[in-house]
Amino acid sequence: MLPTPGNLDLFIDRALEEDSVGADVTTNALIPTHLEARAFLVPKEPGILAGLEVAAAAFRRVDPNLVFTQQLLDGDRVEGGEIAATVAGSMASILTAERTALNFLQRMSGIATLTDQYVNAVDGTTASITDTRKTVPGLRLLDKYAVSIGGGRNHRMSLADGVLIKDNHLAALAGEGVNLAQAIRRARARAPHTVKIEVEVESIEAALAASNAGADIVMLDNMSPEEMHSAVNQIAAECTVEASGGITLANIADVAKSGVDIISVGALTHSPPAMDISLDYETKHA
Amino acid sequence: MLPTPGNLDLFIDRALEEDSVGADVTTNALIPTHLEARAFLVPKEPGILAGLEVAAAAFRRVDPNLVFTQQLLDGDRVEGGEIAATVAGSMASILTAERTALNFLQRMSGIATLTDQYVNAVDGTTASITDTRKTVPGLRLLDKYAVSIGGGRNHRMSLADGVLIKDNHLAALAGEGVNLAQAIRRARARAPHTVKIEVEVESIEAALAASNAGADIVMLDNMSPEEMHSAVNQIAAECTVEASGGITLANIADVAKSGVDIISVGALTHSPPAMDISLDYETKHA
Amino acid sequence: MLPTPGNLDLFIDRALEEDSVGADVTTNALIPTHLEARAFLVPKEPGILAGLEVAAAAFRRVDPNLVFTQQLLDGDRVEGGEIAATVAGSMASILTAERTALNFLQRMSGIATLTDQYVNAVDGTTASITDTRKTVPGLRLLDKYAVSIGGGRNHRMSLADGVLIKDNHLAALAGEGVNLAQAIRRARARAPHTVKIEVEVESIEAALAASNAGADIVMLDNMSPEEMHSAVNQIAAECTVEASGGITLANIADVAKSGVDIISVGALTHSPPAMDISLDYETKHA
Amino acid sequence: MLPTPGNLDLFIDRALEEDSVGADVTTNALIPTHLEARAFLVPKEPGILAGLEVAAAAFRRVDPNLVFTQQLLDGDRVEGGEIAATVAGSMASILTAERTALNFLQRMSGIATLTDQYVNAVDGTTASITDTRKTVPGLRLLDKYAVSIGGGRNHRMSLADGVLIKDNHLAALAGEGVNLAQAIRRARARAPHTVKIEVEVESIEAALAASNAGADIVMLDNMSPEEMHSAVNQIAAECTVEASGGITLANIADVAKSGVDIISVGALTHSPPAMDISLDYETKHA
Amino acid sequence: MLPTPGNLDLFIDRALEEDSVGADVTTNALIPTHLEARAFLVPKEPGILAGLEVAAAAFRRVDPNLVFTQQLLDGDRVEGGEIAATVAGSMASILTAERTALNFLQRMSGIATLTDQYVNAVDGTTASITDTRKTVPGLRLLDKYAVSIGGGRNHRMSLADGVLIKDNHLAALAGEGVNLAQAIRRARARAPHTVKIEVEVESIEAALAASNAGADIVMLDNMSPEEMHSAVNQIAAECTVEASGGITLANIADVAKSGVDIISVGALTHSPPAMDISLDYETKHA
Amino acid sequence: MLPTPGNLDLFIDRALEEDSVGADVTTNALIPTHLEARAFLVPKEPGILAGLEVAAAAFRRVDPNLVFTQQLLDGDRVEGGEIAATVAGSMASILTAERTALNFLQRMSGIATLTDQYVNAVDGTTASITDTRKTVPGLRLLDKYAVSIGGGRNHRMSLADGVLIKDNHLAALAGEGVNLAQAIRRARARAPHTVKIEVEVESIEAALAASNAGADIVMLDNMSPEEMHSAVNQIAAECTVEASGGITLANIADVAKSGVDIISVGALTHSPPAMDISLDYETKHA
Repeated sequence: MLPTPGNLDLFIDRALEEDSVGADVTTNALIPTHLEARAFLVPKEPGILAGLEVAAAAFRRVDPNLVFTQQLLDGDRVEGGEIAATVAGSMASILTAERTALNFLQRMSGIATLTDQYVNAVDGTTASITDTRKTVPGLRLLDKYAVSIGGGRNHRMSLADGVLIKDNHLAALAGEGVNLAQAIRRARARAPHTVKIEVEVESIEAALAASNAGADIVMLDNMSPEEMHSAVNQIAAECTVEASGGITLANIADVAKSGVDIISVGALTHSPPAMDISLDYETKHA
Repeated sequence: MLPTPGNLDLFIDRALEEDSVGADVTTNALIPTHLEARAFLVPKEPGILAGLEVAAAAFRRVDPNLVFTQQLLDGDRVEGGEIAATVAGSMASILTAERTALNFLQRMSGIATLTDQYVNAVDGTTASITDTRKTVPGLRLLDKYAVSIGGGRNHRMSLADGVLIKDNHLAALAGEGVNLAQAIRRARARAPHTVKIEVEVESIEAALAASNAGADIVMLDNMSPEEMHSAVNQIAAECTVEASGGITLANIADVAKSGVDIISVGALTHSPPAMDISLDYETKHA
Repeated sequence: MLPTPGNLDLFIDRALEEDSVGADVTTNALIPTHLEARAFLVPKEPGILAGLEVAAAAFRRVDPNLVFTQQLLDGDRVEGGEIAATVAGSMASILTAERTALNFLQRMSGIATLTDQYVNAVDGTTASITDTRKTVPGLRLLDKYAVSIGGGRNHRMSLADGVLIKDNHLAALAGEGVNLAQAIRRARARAPHTVKIEVEVESIEAALAASNAGADIVMLDNMSPEEMHSAVNQIAAECTVEASGGITLANIADVAKSGVDIISVGALTHSPPAMDISLDYETKHA
Repeated sequence: MLPTPGNLDLFIDRALEEDSVGADVTTNALIPTHLEARAFLVPKEPGILAGLEVAAAAFRRVDPNLVFTQQLLDGDRVEGGEIAATVAGSMASILTAERTALNFLQRMSGIATLTDQYVNAVDGTTASITDTRKTVPGLRLLDKYAVSIGGGRNHRMSLADGVLIKDNHLAALAGEGVNLAQAIRRARARAPHTVKIEVEVESIEAALAASNAGADIVMLDNMSPEEMHSAVNQIAAECTVEASGGITLANIADVAKSGVDIISVGALTHSPPAMDISLDYETKHA
Repeated sequence: MLPTPGNLDLFIDRALEEDSVGADVTTNALIPTHLEARAFLVPKEPGILAGLEVAAAAFRRVDPNLVFTQQLLDGDRVEGGEIAATVAGSMASILTAERTALNFLQRMSGIATLTDQYVNAVDGTTASITDTRKTVPGLRLLDKYAVSIGGGRNHRMSLADGVLIKDNHLAALAGEGVNLAQAIRRARARAPHTVKIEVEVESIEAALAASNAGADIVMLDNMSPEEMHSAVNQIAAECTVEASGGITLANIADVAKSGVDIISVGALTHSPPAMDISLDYETKHA
Repeated sequence: MLPTPGNLDLFIDRALEEDSVGADVTTNALIPTHLEARAFLVPKEPGILAGLEVAAAAFRRVDPNLVFTQQLLDGDRVEGGEIAATVAGSMASILTAERTALNFLQRMSGIATLTDQYVNAVDGTTASITDTRKTVPGLRLLDKYAVSIGGGRNHRMSLADGVLIKDNHLAALAGEGVNLAQAIRRARARAPHTVKIEVEVESIEAALAASNAGADIVMLDNMSPEEMHSAVNQIAAECTVEASGGITLANIADVAKSGVDIISVGALTHSPPAMDISLDYETKHA
C-alpha cells in the first residue's frame, strides 16, 4: 500500500521544491502557455513497473489539469518499448514535472525489477525474499512498496514492529549478567506482545541455543548454505529461519535450497539500478 | 557544501521518524539506560568516504550527548577495515540511531566511490565528470555533495540554474514557427542573464547549427566517440561541449578522448551501489 | 522511550504556536525583561509523574537560557505537595511557557496515574495491562510513553506492528469464500514475518477455532470473566490470550483472575483525567 | 468554526502518519482492493456529537474516493444507537482510516457532551460556561470548537487575545514598586486596545480593589459561592465577573447562583471522557 | 516579543532554503574553508534598528560556530555609519548567510523607522500609533515586533483577538433583520468575553449610534479631522476612539489633534521602505 | 511561473494560520452560515495587477466551495475602479479569507506596478530591468513572479544560479595570492558549467580588467552614468554589462542611456508600496 495521498504529496512537493519547478527558466522562456502536448512514459529495458501512481501524483501536483492515463499497471512486466502511461495537457507543465516524475518511477521500477530477479532465483523453493531497513532515508514506504510490487515481502517497516536481538545486544547484556534465554524472556515481557522476537546468530550452535531459548525467528547471518541447511534441520520445526548477509543473485539459489523460510536482501533497496524510462512527446499545434 | 544544519536536521528527522526511533522495541526492552558504549564506523570495502558529518548529525539528533569523533574525513580513500569515526555514549542511543546514520553514509559513500571510478577513467584527458538531475527525490543536495566529494563537478542543481533546450522544446517551437536561432535568442532575452544556454543535439549537423546559433553549451546526446570527436573539432572553439547518454565505465575513456569538456553521467546518482560500512561495538561495563 | 529531541521539539513548537507565545500580551505589557524568578512544579494530588522531560523541553524551546532542574523523576509516586522540578531564569519566559509545559505534564501524569491504578488492580495475577491505539491524534508516542511509565505495557504502536483480524475482516473474507484458517494463512504469508497474528473473537467457540487455526494471540472481546476463564483453559497453552472491551477499575480484578495474559484498556489514553499540577513562583528582586 | 481545510488536513495527516496507515499489515494482507463496503458511525451512549466533519476529512485523506454522508450534524443530541454518518467505498480504505477518524470524533464528542452537562447544570441562571487554555497540546482549535458545539463559550484562544493578570504578575510587579492600579494602567497602555484586562483575585477585598482599579473582568479564583455572591454584589455593575477553580458538576449550580457572569471549567478539555462510538460494517459482495 | 527560537528558526530556514544556501556556487568555488573573517553590519542612513537578533539567528542557522556580537540594540537610533553588530568566523559561512540576514534586518529596521516617524508626528498629543493586519503574509510576528520597537502599539494580532464589526457585517445583518445594537449584543454574548467590540463607522451619526449601542471602540474610517473632532467630543467619554483610513505623515498631526485615542496606519507594514544596511568585511589572513 | 499549487498552498496556509482564521471571533459571532455573498476585488489606484491566482487560492484554502472568477488577468493595467475579480459563496468564508487574499494581492500588484514604472523609464533604450535577491524572506518566488508580470526580468533566483564575485571575495583571495584572472578560472573550473561568471567592479579600470580576465558579465556598481558609458564602450563587445547600486526612478533614464544591458533595482522588491485594493461586498438575502 502506498502512503496516503496527503503524505505522498509531501514527498512530491519536497522533490518539486528542490528542483525549483517554480523557476524553470527553460520552460518559462520558451514554451507558450497555450501549447498542449501528449507525452508517453516508455520503459527502455525489460523489468517490472512500479510507481506509476506516484508519477501521476507528481504531474498532478505541478498542474491539477494534467490528465494521466495508465496503459499499464504497477507490477506489469515490460520488455521495453511499451507505452506505460500517457500524460496530456499543458506542455509547459509536463516539461516542468518530467524529471521529478521520472526520478520516482525509475527508482521504484528498478527496485521492483531487482526484487523480481531475486524472487525468480529462488523459484521452486519455499523461501520468500524480503527487504531490510537499508532504504533511502525518507522514502522507506515507497522503497518497500516497490519491493512488494516486485514479488518480495516486507521485513520490519521500522524499529517498532519486531524485536531483533543482535550480537551487540547480547554482548552488552552478558556484561550485565543476562544470558540469551533471559534476554528473550525480558523482551517477551516488555515489548508489545504483538511482535515476534528474532535473534541473529552466526553459528549452528548459536542457532540451536536461540531456538531452544524460545526465539520466534532465528536469523542465520553470513553462514554457508551447508551450515544453513544443518541449522534448518535442527530448528525449523520450532521457529522461522531467516538467512541474511552477503546474499547475491549468484548464491541465492543455494541459500534457498538450504530450506530457510526467509531470505532478506539489503541490495534490493540500498543498491538498485534505476530502470531506464523515458518520456516521449507528441506536440499538438492548434 | 552540505545543507545548513537546520535543513540537514529536517532530512534526518524525517528518516528517524519513518524508522520509529521513539518506539525501538528491542532497545527499549533490553538495553539499560545506564549502559555506555563506543562504536566504530568501519568501511568493509575500498572506496571514497562521504557523509560522515551527516552520520554525526543523525547520532546527535537522537541524543545530543553522543560524542562523535572523526578519524577520517569526507573524501578520504579507504581500503576497507579502517576506523572512519567513533561514536561514544549511551548504548541505547547509538543502537537506535545506527541504521539511519548508516543509510545516509552508505549511499553517499557509494556515490563518491562511483564518481571516483569515472573520474579515474578519464584521467589524462581534459574532460570533467558531472552529475545530472537524476537524483533520489528529496535528497538532491546530499547526492550532489557526494559527487563533488568523489571528484566530480555538479551540473544544474535545479531547473533554475541553466537553460537546457531539448528536442522536445525545439519540436514544439517549430510548430509555432520558431527556429533554433530564434529559440536561443528568446531564451537569452527572457531567462536570467546569469545562466548559460545549452542545446541538446543528436548529430554533428545539429551541433554545428546550435553552435552557430550562439549556444553557450552544446550537449552531444548518444553520439559515438568518432562523431563526438568530429563535433568537437568543429565547435569547441565557440562553445563548451558536453557528452551525455549511454556512458558507462566501459566506454567513458573513449568518450573523453574525443575532446569533450564535460561528460555527464546519470548513473552516479540514479544507480550507485551502496558502500558496505558497519558499526562495530565495544561495550563498557561499569 | 520518548521521541527524539528533534521530533519532540516539533510537538512543542506546534503547541507554543497555537498559544501565540510570541504575542503574550500580558507578559509583554507587564513583566520587565530583567526580572528573574524561580518556579516550582508541584503536584496537587497523589499519582505517578510522567512528562517532566517534555515540560523541560517546553521551557527550553521558549528560552534556551532557562534552567530546569528535576527534583523527581518520571515514574516517581507523589502524594501531592512535593516539588517535582524547578525552573529558573527570566520570569517573562517562564510565564509564557507555563501553560504549554503544564498541558503536557498534566495529561501525561494523568495517564501514568490511571495506568498505575489498573496495574495495582491486577496485582497478584499474571495479567499485564496494555494500552490501545485510542490515543489523542498526533500525540501517540507521548501517550504510550506515559502508559509505560505508569507500569503498563504498550500494545501496537500503529497499524504496522501487528496483524489484528476482527469480525469485519472475517465477514468480508467469508463473502470471498475465505475462512478463518485461510485468512490466518494468508496473513502469515503476506504480512512481515516479524509480527504476530491476533484474532478478535466474541465466543468460546470462536476462541477455540482461532487457536486451532494457528492464531498467535486470541483477543476475547466483551466476554464475561467466566467465559474468559473457560477460554483460557482451552487455549492458553497454544497462544497468548488478551481480554478487551468494557473493562473498568470495577471489574478488572475479575477479568485478571480468569487467567488472561493481557488486558487492554482503551480508557488509559482516551479518557484519562489530568493530574492537578501547579507552577508556584518565587520572584527575585535585584 | 473549524480550522481551514488545509490546516485541518495537517492535523489529520500527522495522525495518519503516526498510525502508519501506509503500512497497515492487516488490511494489506487480507482485504482485496476490489472489495467495497458501507460502514456506519454509531454512538453507543447518550451525548452531543462533535467532529463529524473531522472524521469525514480523515476518511477523505486516506482515500478521496470514499463517500461520507452525515445523517446527523455536530451539536445533535443522541441517545446511543443512531446512525450518525455513513462512509462508503473501498473497504480497505475504510478499515485503514477507521481508528484515526474515531479518535478525533470520540474525543470531540466527549468534550461536547461534558460541556453540555455543565451548561445544563447552570440552566436558569445568567452564567455562561467557558473553557480554558488547558487543552491537548496541538489540538486547541478542535477542543475549543467542541466546547462551542456543546453549548459553551470560548475563553482566550491563546496568550494574544486577553490580558490576564495573576497573583504572580502582581507579586513580581510589587517588587518593582508597581501596584495593582498601576499595573492595569500599564497593561491598558501597552497591550492591544482591542483586548480586555482581567485580574485574578482570591478574596472579596482584592475583587473590589481590582474593580476599582479599572479591571474589565475580575476572576474570582477558588472562592466559596457565598464569597462569590458577596463579590458579585459589590462589583458586578462595574465589570464582568468570572468564577474559576475547583468547579465540578457537583458544585457548579451553587457557583452559578452567586450571580457570576462566566464560569470557566478546565475539566471540559483537560479531562473529558471519550464518547463511545463505533464503526459498524456492512460488506457488499460483487 | 519575538517568536520563540524554534519558530524563528522556521522562518529563517525557509529563507535560507529559497536562497539555496547549500548550493552557493560562488562561495563553494572560491572561498577556502579555512578562511576566517570579521564583518560589520553598518546602517547607511538614519533610522531605528530592529531585527538584530533575527540577523544573528540567520548567521547561526548557517553556521553555529559564527560569533555574533551586538554593538547596538533593537530600538537604537542610528545616523548611518555606526557599527550595529559584528559577525566573526568562517568567511564562507558569513558570505552565504549575508543576504538572508540583511533581508530580515533591512525590512524590520525599515518598519521601525517608519513607525518612529509617525510616532514623532503625533508627539504632544494623546494619540497612539498602531499597526494593522496588513502585514507580509507569513511574517506578521516580525512585522508587528518591528512596529513595537519603533514606538508603535500593536492592533489585533489576528482575527482571534478583537471583534471588529464593519459595514459589510452590518449590511449583511440588516438583511437578516438585525440592527447595530442587536449585533453588538450578539457579539458580546458569543465572542470570548476577553475581547472588546469595535465598530467601524463613516459618519458622526454612526459613531454616536455605535457608542450608544455599547461599542467598546469606535473606529472613525476616512473622516476629516473636523468630523473626528466632533465625534470625539460626543463619544470619547464612553469608548475608545480610533482613526483609520487614508492617514499619511502629511495629515496625521491634524488627525491626532482631533483627540482620538488610537491612529492605525496600514502603511507601517504594507509599504515600508527598507533601511539601507550593508555588511562590511575585514578579512584575516593566517 | 508561480510555485506549484502544493507549494503555493503552503505559503497561504501559513498566512491563514497566523491570522487565526479558525478563530475569527467576529464572523463566528455575527454571520450566519447560510448567508451567501458576492464580493469584488477593486483596485483603487492605477497600476499593474499581479497575484490574482494567489488571491484565488487563499479564498479556496479557506473554503473550497467559494467560486472565484477573474474579470482581469495578471499583467493587466488598471486605472482604479475596475472589477478585477469576483468571489462568491459563503459570506463567512469570504470575510475570513479577505485580509490574507488582499495582503498577497496588494504586495504583488505593488511590485508589478513599481517594476512597470522602471521599465517605462528606460523605454527606447536597450536596457532591461531586473530584480535582485533583496526579497521578503520566504516569498521570493512570489516577489520575482510579480517583477516578471510588471515587465522586468529576473536576476538570480538564489545563490545557485550564477557566480557573482564581489570585492570581498577578491580581497579575500588576494590575501591567498589569487588574482582576479585566477579567481575567474577557478570559478569556471569548479562552478556548474551552466552558470555564468559575473564580477562586480567599482571603476572603469576594474571593469576592463574583469572583461579581459574573461568575466561573462561585469556589474558596474555605484558608478556615474558617464563612467558607465565609458565602460560600456570598452567592454560591451566582450561581455554583458550590468548597472547596479543607487538607481532610482529619477536617475535610471541616464543610466540606461549609458548603453548598459541590464539594470538591477533592489527597490522593486525591498521597498514596493502596496497597491490600494479593496474587497467590496454585495450581500444576497434568501
